[in-house]
Amino acid sequence: MPKGQPLQVPDDGLTTRQRRGRPLVIVHTGAGKGKSTAAFGLALRAWNQGWPVGVFQFVKSAKWRTGEERALRVLGSCGEGGQVTWHKMGEGWSWIQRQPGGQAEQAAEGWAQVARDLAAQTYRLYVLDEFTYPIRWGWVDVREVTSVLASRPGNQHVVITGRDAHPDLLACADLVTEMTKVKHPMDRGQKGQKGIEW
Amino acid sequence: MPKGQPLQVPDDGLTTRQRRGRPLVIVHTGAGKGKSTAAFGLALRAWNQGWPVGVFQFVKSAKWRTGEERALRVLGSCGEGGQVTWHKMGEGWSWIQRQPGGQAEQAAEGWAQVARDLAAQTYRLYVLDEFTYPIRWGWVDVREVTSVLASRPGNQHVVITGRDAHPDLLACADLVTEMTKVKHPMDRGQKGQKGIEW
Repeated sequence: MPKGQPLQVPDDGLTTRQRRGRPLVIVHTGAGKGKSTAAFGLALRAWNQGWPVGVFQFVKSAKWRTGEERALRVLGSCGEGGQVTWHKMGEGWSWIQRQPGGQAEQAAEGWAQVARDLAAQTYRLYVLDEFTYPIRWGWVDVREVTSVLASRPGNQHVVITGRDAHPDLLACADLVTEMTKVKHPMDRGQKGQKGIEW
Repeated sequence: MPKGQPLQVPDDGLTTRQRRGRPLVIVHTGAGKGKSTAAFGLALRAWNQGWPVGVFQFVKSAKWRTGEERALRVLGSCGEGGQVTWHKMGEGWSWIQRQPGGQAEQAAEGWAQVARDLAAQTYRLYVLDEFTYPIRWGWVDVREVTSVLASRPGNQHVVITGRDAHPDLLACADLVTEMTKVKHPMDRGQKGQKGIEW
């Protein structure tokens, strides 16, 4: 929530308005809570602007993000705000008819669709939830990711969440927040609960 | 997003289920982005559980959080999920008829209503957005806040956002995440933009 004036105005030939409107690659990383919830909070702002929002959920379990998914589906179809399209790896991606392959293959297929959508400018905000992991595990080539992100056309914002973001991904991002755990109920033996963790 | 088993199971006489269901005081603090968006992302999960959600927006500008407010109003009145009630200091609190006083007085009146609602168990999740500031500035007594939070009845979760959370507030919280700025477009002279900052 930075307010006020930037410390320096860069000599980049852009007006304040042009500079302000530049599309962003945003990364929420770190071991603390709030990486995905903050990304879905951003999706509310995008929805409010009338932007089409595409969510790509790069997680194994189909149970995750059920609250966020239901809320964004209601918002996306209520006749106000932007449309929301939700893609889940956990159930096999919706654009793939055949049986899902292994997780590495599924993650690669998810990223390939993101790249196609970026080329086609399908959405204005992309939420790539837990996408740091397939990059870390080598299932998706980080050089390809940064190259596609850097050369994406138009005005498309991309938010990527997950721990242990690859250094090359951080280098290519415009905005990086690290969610740091200061204190967590798990430290006192309390497991996650509905309404809070999902 | 901690998964799996806690490292230690405490000797507190509670079952895992009882321990898991304990109500939480959550603080999102630090200089990075994502404190409020993560709180509103949590509100989506609460809404999905059918919980009544109360938002208290302790900020001066009525322009802030317009996206989140519109989204949660749509969700709260769509006939699915929990009800959402939104209170704004920036426009004068809705339960106060007379002209608003100064900000210190308004903040104190906001907190007094939160305390009444906690006593009455009005909501299941409270989002006290930017509430760290009135505490920091001494407009609201931190001892009273921690006392009311510690003795609140029933099963009520409270999320508090803002920089520079008071140490006594952190001490009384169950879950604290610090949003740390790693990189921000403001560093390159780029000001905030719609859909991202509001």
